Amino acid sequence: MAGRTGFVWDELYAWHNTGNFGLVMPYGWPVQPGEHAENPETKRRLRNLVDVSGLLAKLTTIVARRATEDEVCLLHTREYFAKVRAHNEDLAWETGVSAVMGRGSFDVALLAVGGCLAAVDAILDGRIRNAYALVRPPGHHALAAQGMGFCIFCNAAIAGLYALERRGLRKIAFVDWDVHHGNGTQEAFYADPRALTISLHQDRCFPPDSGGVEERGAGAGRGYNINIPLPPGSGSGAYEYAFERVVLPALEKYAPELIIVPSGFDSGGLDPLGRMMLSSQAYRVLTRRLMDVAARVCGGRIL
Amino acid sequence: MAGRTGFVWDELYAWHNTGNFGLVMPYGWPVQPGEHAENPETKRRLRNLVDVSGLLAKLTTIVARRATEDEVCLLHTREYFAKVRAHNEDLAWETGVSAVMGRGSFDVALLAVGGCLAAVDAILDGRIRNAYALVRPPGHHALAAQGMGFCIFCNAAIAGLYALERRGLRKIAFVDWDVHHGNGTQEAFYADPRALTISLHQDRCFPPDSGGVEERGAGAGRGYNINIPLPPGSGSGAYEYAFERVVLPALEKYAPELIIVPSGFDSGGLDPLGRMMLSSQAYRVLTRRLMDVAARVCGGRIL
Amino acid sequence: MAGRTGFVWDELYAWHNTGNFGLVMPYGWPVQPGEHAENPETKRRLRNLVDVSGLLAKLTTIVARRATEDEVCLLHTREYFAKVRAHNEDLAWETGVSAVMGRGSFDVALLAVGGCLAAVDAILDGRIRNAYALVRPPGHHALAAQGMGFCIFCNAAIAGLYALERRGLRKIAFVDWDVHHGNGTQEAFYADPRALTISLHQDRCFPPDSGGVEERGAGAGRGYNINIPLPPGSGSGAYEYAFERVVLPALEKYAPELIIVPSGFDSGGLDPLGRMMLSSQAYRVLTRRLMDVAARVCGGRIL
Amino acid sequence: MAGRTGFVWDELYAWHNTGNFGLVMPYGWPVQPGEHAENPETKRRLRNLVDVSGLLAKLTTIVARRATEDEVCLLHTREYFAKVRAHNEDLAWETGVSAVMGRGSFDVALLAVGGCLAAVDAILDGRIRNAYALVRPPGHHALAAQGMGFCIFCNAAIAGLYALERRGLRKIAFVDWDVHHGNGTQEAFYADPRALTISLHQDRCFPPDSGGVEERGAGAGRGYNINIPLPPGSGSGAYEYAFERVVLPALEKYAPELIIVPSGFDSGGLDPLGRMMLSSQAYRVLTRRLMDVAARVCGGRIL
Repeated sequence: MAGRTGFVWDELYAWHNTGNFGLVMPYGWPVQPGEHAENPETKRRLRNLVDVSGLLAKLTTIVARRATEDEVCLLHTREYFAKVRAHNEDLAWETGVSAVMGRGSFDVALLAVGGCLAAVDAILDGRIRNAYALVRPPGHHALAAQGMGFCIFCNAAIAGLYALERRGLRKIAFVDWDVHHGNGTQEAFYADPRALTISLHQDRCFPPDSGGVEERGAGAGRGYNINIPLPPGSGSGAYEYAFERVVLPALEKYAPELIIVPSGFDSGGLDPLGRMMLSSQAYRVLTRRLMDVAARVCGGRIL
Repeated sequence: MAGRTGFVWDELYAWHNTGNFGLVMPYGWPVQPGEHAENPETKRRLRNLVDVSGLLAKLTTIVARRATEDEVCLLHTREYFAKVRAHNEDLAWETGVSAVMGRGSFDVALLAVGGCLAAVDAILDGRIRNAYALVRPPGHHALAAQGMGFCIFCNAAIAGLYALERRGLRKIAFVDWDVHHGNGTQEAFYADPRALTISLHQDRCFPPDSGGVEERGAGAGRGYNINIPLPPGSGSGAYEYAFERVVLPALEKYAPELIIVPSGFDSGGLDPLGRMMLSSQAYRVLTRRLMDVAARVCGGRIL
Repeated sequence: MAGRTGFVWDELYAWHNTGNFGLVMPYGWPVQPGEHAENPETKRRLRNLVDVSGLLAKLTTIVARRATEDEVCLLHTREYFAKVRAHNEDLAWETGVSAVMGRGSFDVALLAVGGCLAAVDAILDGRIRNAYALVRPPGHHALAAQGMGFCIFCNAAIAGLYALERRGLRKIAFVDWDVHHGNGTQEAFYADPRALTISLHQDRCFPPDSGGVEERGAGAGRGYNINIPLPPGSGSGAYEYAFERVVLPALEKYAPELIIVPSGFDSGGLDPLGRMMLSSQAYRVLTRRLMDVAARVCGGRIL
Repeated sequence: MAGRTGFVWDELYAWHNTGNFGLVMPYGWPVQPGEHAENPETKRRLRNLVDVSGLLAKLTTIVARRATEDEVCLLHTREYFAKVRAHNEDLAWETGVSAVMGRGSFDVALLAVGGCLAAVDAILDGRIRNAYALVRPPGHHALAAQGMGFCIFCNAAIAGLYALERRGLRKIAFVDWDVHHGNGTQEAFYADPRALTISLHQDRCFPPDSGGVEERGAGAGRGYNINIPLPPGSGSGAYEYAFERVVLPALEKYAPELIIVPSGFDSGGLDPLGRMMLSSQAYRVLTRRLMDVAARVCGGRIL
């Protein structure tokens, strides 16, 4: 029998090609051509490990679909959408700061957004209880009119807007534990009280001057944006303390109907793009906490 | 004591980045991003094998220099030169059919041409007797106003023009045993009796309709272009026979002052871009034959 | 609705680790450590291409199982089985000529045999009509008491013996179009009339002195082994002619109840281990011919 | 004119093959085969960057030689030496905890030791002032009778013993800033006052319970071993402070005739095997400090 947890993956996610870089710097003298930090192998490997571990057989596969222009433009501008589409045949093009797309990346980006939307549908239709969407390219830095930080379209924020405007939810929450600030998600809902946006991240890592505690939302959204910048070297204790003191109480109080987790694993202790020290055990604990609060406030609905 | 054979290599040759391809097809649905057929590893490995085998220590290192615009434009148009330079900062750009350049490839291409020119100088100045220039990007398909088949500038033909126009030679010869037709070299000298251009290649492999026996030169160059298309599957015997019957007698008769060998190794039996069956032993034999005739007609000067 | 064609793949097939080689030679001076010719990437890529092309969704997934010792020893000796098992924890061990296993390869080899057995069961139980088993390590060179040519256990031959002895079939046939001679399959049934073994291969490629036309079977198996060695450079025409004149008539006459195809793709025109020139179109034609004859003689049952 | 700084590199250093690992764990269920953390690419890239930056042309190349058995056994036991030699043809063998050798690694390890000895000779003969030996396999964990932590023979300690016993020096010093404790070097000289051994490392990283401040030397060597374990997350400031307060005064006071720096770069901020935060700028500062003190106490002689 299929499980109550959905899983989104499409082999085409591994075909989004970020080209040859020196980690995050475009190659070219004095940077030798090498592998881009956001390359397919880590995520394809994750998908394969889910498979060989026997876990995949217990999950419900969610088939990704292409998001429509209207869906993507719940957040992004028509101009930006058209621009990304126009460059789909280029061998390489930069959608914004540190956000390169390769040939066909527009197609894959639509599939990434659409995979998240398919997961939202499956959860809200009650076919599954929660889901994990392993998509590429990532999303949480992308802004309305430009890509940023490996991200082309802001997948999770679009999924949230879709849940609100197409599926009739009234309140959603984001808990972003990627090591970098979830500035794209924050901006999408900065003046919008329908979403509680929380980001835990390494202080002043990326974007450089973004994600301070003083960024609390604006207008009607005032108070619904919470940044928790943590110092480099923070480990499981710091994250659990922040959960206990801030994240979980805020979720309990706000009582969202769906919780979305832009879940980068670069807070892990071996990731070269951050200096945090989370272990797989720490991710297990944090996930368990979120599932408990979700069970209490929104029927366990987490994406 | 340094040897009588020069060797050209510059680590930057390995930085010319042809990006992600499916062999020779641009990636993108339905072609998965992969390694380009003309990637740095084969040539860097060749350089390193020359090193570990102890051979490098017996060769005279020729330091590559950047060719000047005037030198490159002995063959190429100013417009094409400017266009390649203008795209030097792009992450990827196509200079012509199947000839992609990456960021900085203009710089590397100048260094490839310049490495060949430095070798010509060293030979003609008598510092060495012959030389091997292991350069990237390759050259023999490039035309005056466009790149082609992995090639950006037509290195060997430029080296030949340099020898004629800057170093005062009157007659040179090319023997091209790359598995593909040396169409760029042929075109550069098609009406020019100062160069005997010979190409042995797999019949109708690349460029598709190029390299027939009937292409013999034009005007004053009539009779000074020899194509020897061989059927797929040809091995050492076919090449040696062609040398015996055509190449060596032609060289003896023409008596060039310098022999230039655009030497692709894709006629080798394991190369996926051709269907010839040469072994390393065959290359040894052919090289020996060329050295013998060079010793007789031009003091052994081979590049 | 699930298709009538089964597909066997397990991510663990990609974990069989053949280590660092220079193509087929063990690395070590003067062979630089590199990728082994039989590495996971080609087969994982094939699996992924089946996925992204949309084909996977039309196939019936067959879940692989571990073969038991008794099943493997339908062909192999208990001593050899024990030896392979004993070396399962070694970082590297050679089971025979050019057949290296890595840590855990015994486990993966059992899964490769078991994947084939699962496919036999699915076909004979009528759940599917035919199946494609994309397994690693390969099998057709392995002998009763030793591995050979990348092969540890002789998957296809074991599947045949399983069909005969455990599933009650009386006659089966093998059509092996791998570029190398299927010597392991041949030996398993050399004196056994219950299997018609046919191998088309490049003449004297591997094993060096194996696969001649004069090897026709022995004793009761006399006449039931057919070798068709083809010269290097043979293409679609040669294979189709051999099918028309020998393979198809022999199958029609023998009328097996199941056809098994040890299907290496190294007869393809770009494969560095052979010099044949088959295209994907040629494989399509040959497969269609086999399916037609299978439809006539054995209800379409092909593995 | 050749520079006053020597550089040791041999392409064979890149042929030491540590095989397929999951970072530092032997592959095999549940660890997928992947790249070993100590693989050739990082060091070959370093060598190539030294080349393309133009720095190589300013250095004096020191040609590595094979160390003799007697030289290696200045530190290691004859039994261990024989054992490593005996396994030289194996595809893989573990010389000790986390110290795998591949085929030919014995030969390469001799060349690594010998490269250091050649550098010692060049310095003590006055041909150069200091040198950088970029060798593989590394050395500072290896013990007299076993390999450990990627290290087979303890290169730097052997070089020190060679300087003392073969070249007549009376006092040498080691400053080891690899992120892991230099336990092999420490053990070699623990009771030996002829060497001051200093190690700065991440506290309790590897070997797990090694490198505490209380390990100060024994017998006549008492007081000549200094461990400076630093907490994870330490950056340039911590290292500079430790230099100012401990390392530089100790060197001044001890006045060695040669300083040897087992210089792993895994204290760098992006290295996955440690949690330190040194930048390239920090390494520049520390190197400058060492050169200053070396100029004062030992004529600038650093290896």
